[in-house]
Amino acid sequence: MTETAWQRRTTPATEAALEQVDAWWRAANYLSIGQIYLQQNPLLREPLQPEHIKRRLLGHWGTTPGLNFVYGHLNRAISDRAQRTLFVMGPGHGGPSGVACAWLEGTYTERFPDIAQSERGMQRLFRQFSFPGGIPSHAAPETPGSINEGGELGYSLAHAYGAALDDPELLVACVVGDGEAETGPLAGSWHANKLLNPAADGAVLPILHLNGWKIANPTLLARIPEAELVALMRGYGHDPIVVTVGADDEDPMESHARFAEALDDALDRIAQIKADAAAGALEERPAWPMLVLRSPKGWTCPDEVDGTAIEGTWRAHQVPLEEVRENDEHRRLLEQWLRTYRPEELFDEHGAPRPIVTAVAPPGELRMSATPVANGGELRRALALADIRPHAHQVDPTARGASSTGSTAVLGEWLAAVLRDNPETFRIFGPDETASNRLAPAVYEVTGKQWNAETLPVDEDLAPTGRVIEVLSEHLCQGLLEGYLLTGRHGLLNTYEAFAHIVDSMLNQHAKWLESASRIEWRAPIASLNYLLSSHVWRQDHNGFSHQDPGFIDVALNKSADVVRVYLPFDANTLLSTADHCLRSTGYVNVIVAGKQPEPQWLTMDEAVEHCARGLGVLPWAGTETPERPADAVLAAAGDVPTLEALAAASLLRDAVPELSLRVVNVVDLARLQQEDQHPHGLPDAEYDRIFTRDRPVIFAYHGYPWLIHRLTYKRAGHEQLHVHGFLERGTTTTPFDMVMMNGLDRYTLAIDVIDRAGLADSHAEVRQELTDARSRAKAYTREHGIDIPEVADWVWRGAPSE
Amino acid sequence: MTETAWQRRTTPATEAALEQVDAWWRAANYLSIGQIYLQQNPLLREPLQPEHIKRRLLGHWGTTPGLNFVYGHLNRAISDRAQRTLFVMGPGHGGPSGVACAWLEGTYTERFPDIAQSERGMQRLFRQFSFPGGIPSHAAPETPGSINEGGELGYSLAHAYGAALDDPELLVACVVGDGEAETGPLAGSWHANKLLNPAADGAVLPILHLNGWKIANPTLLARIPEAELVALMRGYGHDPIVVTVGADDEDPMESHARFAEALDDALDRIAQIKADAAAGALEERPAWPMLVLRSPKGWTCPDEVDGTAIEGTWRAHQVPLEEVRENDEHRRLLEQWLRTYRPEELFDEHGAPRPIVTAVAPPGELRMSATPVANGGELRRALALADIRPHAHQVDPTARGASSTGSTAVLGEWLAAVLRDNPETFRIFGPDETASNRLAPAVYEVTGKQWNAETLPVDEDLAPTGRVIEVLSEHLCQGLLEGYLLTGRHGLLNTYEAFAHIVDSMLNQHAKWLESASRIEWRAPIASLNYLLSSHVWRQDHNGFSHQDPGFIDVALNKSADVVRVYLPFDANTLLSTADHCLRSTGYVNVIVAGKQPEPQWLTMDEAVEHCARGLGVLPWAGTETPERPADAVLAAAGDVPTLEALAAASLLRDAVPELSLRVVNVVDLARLQQEDQHPHGLPDAEYDRIFTRDRPVIFAYHGYPWLIHRLTYKRAGHEQLHVHGFLERGTTTTPFDMVMMNGLDRYTLAIDVIDRAGLADSHAEVRQELTDARSRAKAYTREHGIDIPEVADWVWRGAPSE
Repeated sequence: MTETAWQRRTTPATEAALEQVDAWWRAANYLSIGQIYLQQNPLLREPLQPEHIKRRLLGHWGTTPGLNFVYGHLNRAISDRAQRTLFVMGPGHGGPSGVACAWLEGTYTERFPDIAQSERGMQRLFRQFSFPGGIPSHAAPETPGSINEGGELGYSLAHAYGAALDDPELLVACVVGDGEAETGPLAGSWHANKLLNPAADGAVLPILHLNGWKIANPTLLARIPEAELVALMRGYGHDPIVVTVGADDEDPMESHARFAEALDDALDRIAQIKADAAAGALEERPAWPMLVLRSPKGWTCPDEVDGTAIEGTWRAHQVPLEEVRENDEHRRLLEQWLRTYRPEELFDEHGAPRPIVTAVAPPGELRMSATPVANGGELRRALALADIRPHAHQVDPTARGASSTGSTAVLGEWLAAVLRDNPETFRIFGPDETASNRLAPAVYEVTGKQWNAETLPVDEDLAPTGRVIEVLSEHLCQGLLEGYLLTGRHGLLNTYEAFAHIVDSMLNQHAKWLESASRIEWRAPIASLNYLLSSHVWRQDHNGFSHQDPGFIDVALNKSADVVRVYLPFDANTLLSTADHCLRSTGYVNVIVAGKQPEPQWLTMDEAVEHCARGLGVLPWAGTETPERPADAVLAAAGDVPTLEALAAASLLRDAVPELSLRVVNVVDLARLQQEDQHPHGLPDAEYDRIFTRDRPVIFAYHGYPWLIHRLTYKRAGHEQLHVHGFLERGTTTTPFDMVMMNGLDRYTLAIDVIDRAGLADSHAEVRQELTDARSRAKAYTREHGIDIPEVADWVWRGAPSE
Repeated sequence: MTETAWQRRTTPATEAALEQVDAWWRAANYLSIGQIYLQQNPLLREPLQPEHIKRRLLGHWGTTPGLNFVYGHLNRAISDRAQRTLFVMGPGHGGPSGVACAWLEGTYTERFPDIAQSERGMQRLFRQFSFPGGIPSHAAPETPGSINEGGELGYSLAHAYGAALDDPELLVACVVGDGEAETGPLAGSWHANKLLNPAADGAVLPILHLNGWKIANPTLLARIPEAELVALMRGYGHDPIVVTVGADDEDPMESHARFAEALDDALDRIAQIKADAAAGALEERPAWPMLVLRSPKGWTCPDEVDGTAIEGTWRAHQVPLEEVRENDEHRRLLEQWLRTYRPEELFDEHGAPRPIVTAVAPPGELRMSATPVANGGELRRALALADIRPHAHQVDPTARGASSTGSTAVLGEWLAAVLRDNPETFRIFGPDETASNRLAPAVYEVTGKQWNAETLPVDEDLAPTGRVIEVLSEHLCQGLLEGYLLTGRHGLLNTYEAFAHIVDSMLNQHAKWLESASRIEWRAPIASLNYLLSSHVWRQDHNGFSHQDPGFIDVALNKSADVVRVYLPFDANTLLSTADHCLRSTGYVNVIVAGKQPEPQWLTMDEAVEHCARGLGVLPWAGTETPERPADAVLAAAGDVPTLEALAAASLLRDAVPELSLRVVNVVDLARLQQEDQHPHGLPDAEYDRIFTRDRPVIFAYHGYPWLIHRLTYKRAGHEQLHVHGFLERGTTTTPFDMVMMNGLDRYTLAIDVIDRAGLADSHAEVRQELTDARSRAKAYTREHGIDIPEVADWVWRGAPSE
């Protein structure tokens, strides 16, 4: 084994080498079937008895033999070329394969010492599969070598490309199932080859595995003429190699020879592209090779059972033989099937794999099940994070709100420094929103948008290598970022708030991965997945109702409190402090919502750091409370627009109802509202009560759907006195202030609600009326002129009397 | 105009005809720019003054001229062929185009009489655009002729194919933007041509509109070699025709001639395919034509402004000329630009379009803006729904729970009747789940799965035409269903509960469409979008954690209460009654969650109908309450598994704590928990109190995340006494009963909680301990044997003593 990456084939695939691959394949197949069926007698030392069979037969055979086949062949090639390789298993229910191969490579035993390479270990390996408290029937965090959960389909190729970024000597072999290939996210991911740099990034070898069937249906790509399929792959920018294996009348060794040849061909072509790229000799985007592997679904299982065809049909998808415990004939068929693999040739008398099986596997970290790349936390290094203070927006505490700036633009300046200081480990992804979200121009002063499709002279900021990747697919953006994080790097996804829902399901799956991984000892923590949601619900001046949806927060907070954090910074400095915190963290999904439009600035950097460290707190300068005069009411806010409205309401109240003692609270970290036992960030009840009181009315202006705040606080004292204003799913194409008015989140409504809840409605009927009239004037003016009234548009915090 | 569909070209595109198209194009462009800029002086009767210009310039020009171009050419072809045509506008920000074309056709004025074909009407048309309370900058429900919201991108092609189903004489011209084309859902939708039947369904003509740019980036498909693009389209199964228009040095009339020729060619090929299909002469799936239209972004706007290139760059995406009110030079440029269209030739002295413009438009319902297909409620007819009673599962009220069946299988029998009785207006869609969800075999006894890719002898239930469509893309399934519903038909999407999150964003957008449409007088109500979520969180025996997510309900309930309904039927008969109700309804998104596994059956059909009509109610046979002895506690449940556990808990308590007076409540319609002012289904407080009491502890076993129940009920009396058990995001690969144990939703935990909350913990310590022990035994047995203990697995309701 040499250290040179991207070698061409050094040794032809001799018959002897292919015999080893075949032994690997047979052993992995045997172990896969054992997982589905056996709880005892793993080596078939005696004829199968009912008690050897699991009581419930659960699992998936269909895609597994094809995966085992590919894995064995990759091993041969890896051993030959000393090629560092990550295996991404797209086919959902290939779980048995990943586990079997990791066990054969010894990694499974290294990761789970209880499951040794022995008869007993094999029995445990079999038993845990699809068994209560065991492992699922698809690749999962528990599977050594895996970065791609096989449950929800569609993300394997995006994960593969994300893993390949900035790792120029890495090969990512990505098996795409023909079921998965029907999903939208996967269909859109093929174009990621135009976002990869052939010199600075690794290479992805897609292997489209056509076994022809899903659960109960054929697959589309297996049922189009080969010319169409080849055209499709060429259209995606690939140079496809089609290999068909497993014909009924063919010696498997011929299948092996054919696939070995195709794989070597593909890898040699990749080596050539890499060599050309390294030499600067690539004149245009290369047509990367890819493999199409046609193999029978359930390959090598019984042709038919009870007169019904099984192998090569959808009936092989799950458990080809049912009722094996009860049905003697089925049990006999199972035994016969298992013995076709000649287990005695594959495993020694103790149950360990024999050299004929293990010979093809590469050593150490070249084993795909043992590569540190698939346990990215091992490779992760903390980011070099520039001090946020020099990037702070200067706020004069005696004139808060007097200066206005776009908070995300301030963040962009700091992110530019992060990009500059971490040139190989930090990336920003976005669906064409990075400029719109005002992270540009700053970030493009230090880097470009990576792009390897054609360019034109008029283009700006595109570059063959660059730290920003933009493509109008939220799925692809998130998939790339996940792949990048799972292999030990850091990043940020910036996108529209409303359209973050497009990746709800990816958030769910990634959060579940993090949650499961946190309970697996050998999985080292990876960097958090950071969302920056800008262009939010309140600022959709020309886009209207379809762009108004703050519900991504709700989806996030349904996931385990151990892995989810939601932040609503309300100005530039709280945004900086929040982002700094998030980029340091590991193991979380961090959702940051922050507006991109110019907005008043409130806290100095010191104040912002302290406020964000607490996650919430009183804004003493905004209220009228004094030590002598405890608050009559609390006006709380979370989010930039709600805080602006709450502060304006506080200002109105100071003038109009000076005798009211008002406390103003801001919440940046939503989880602090929860109780200690509900979330690690949950505030102890006593602290909560100190901030929100136990018995005063709390009027809460919230960025999103108001019921979320009730959900987080329903066990708190005084919950019945909590009145939340938020987005009520009322929207249209209109000005920002009209939007808050439509949803009752505007300063006038908030001020009136404080008056009412504080019991001052009767005594202050005139003030109330004035506020109501002002609100009506604002509405009329907006509808007449298309802009907000000057009192609103130009409103500046006038400061508390004491300042 | 003749009535024959699918005519070939009757008249060549003469120079005179193309002059008319050009006039249309210029007029639509003029009106589009007017919408973005002008609030007065719409006909340019005088030189532009600052006060003629809107105060805020919002909108999108970039894609608009290309859309106007396509629309004008389609009009010529429609007029020539009398071809009934639906226009689907994919490019997100083409709003000005749809509005301009509808106004030119007279439809806008028919729909909104205030906006006449006059100078004043034109001024109003301009003013409302991107203006508070007006219309957004993308196609929306307000746009006559639209079924595709242009906000969130990715669904145009799926909508187009859905619209084409079962309407064999309909042409759907679908413009796909090159931005949208990058999204996963769109990339996966091209394959829908394999799901269409050339004889029984309409035809879709995709027009890929490459203007080369998104907001700030080039598009991928515009930056690959043409050979790759053509290969991609061939790979998708199309026969592409590429047309480039708008070269700087070309007379626009040459562009017109070239595109007219290409469009006629495409339509003639479609006519040929349709003729062959009608004659039974199609031997294989046809390669449908599609058009690639390359045109400059912002075509016909100023080449450059202030020395910066605009036309043909991303800078033309929104407003090409900024600060037109303030900047005299920009205002001069705008006027010059507007005058290039020669408005005096296009509009008469009153502001109405002249005959040279309108000549190309077809009459009446052939106008794409006026086709009833785009206002599907006009075409919708109620389904013929078979009586559910003959399909009921027979429940013996003296032995409830004794019979067990899969509830979705019972539903399948009834759905088969619905499919049979509505052979052209009802379809079932699913991502390969229809059989797995047990709707098969029943539904396949009356229909097949429509499939026009290759078939093999081993295939089952595939058919060239069939009422079930399966493809492993939730996005495509939902997009097809939406297109089908929006054009006046009915349907059901059945899918995995966890993976319904894949279409969260589509649910949001469709709900917003329904909400907006309900406020538009001329939009007739369409059939509800019905989800059947099976394979739910509690039954993932071999799939584990990644498949466990009940949060789709939460996403749905964030949308307007006017359009969302969530149902949790708990047995076959409540499921039948619910489905019957949902298929009769219009204007809603109905989410039905129901398990597919065999489960005990509880209510007779009569009881189920009554229970579902109320949406919730006491199950008198399950409790121990008597008129003399009001309930000490309430045990409530929503969902099939929670209700089973609650009933088992009630049974345990009856035996163990006979002195406890217990009321058992079941909730099918979740919205009933809300208050009257929050949801139209909300229960009045008095009724709620009668069912749940005001002061007794309520132990609530809920299917999903428990906080949802708190969110729905937080304003109810006695809320602090409500204790919800639900999914706590704790899951793994295990038995159903182990799952409920992991989340504290099991019968033992529920019974113990009732004892504790009823204040009986001390007096019944022994009972409590027995229950705890039983729970531990169940856990140990499951982990040992992989199945539930017989006491759980074989548990049958033993009936109340009185029965």
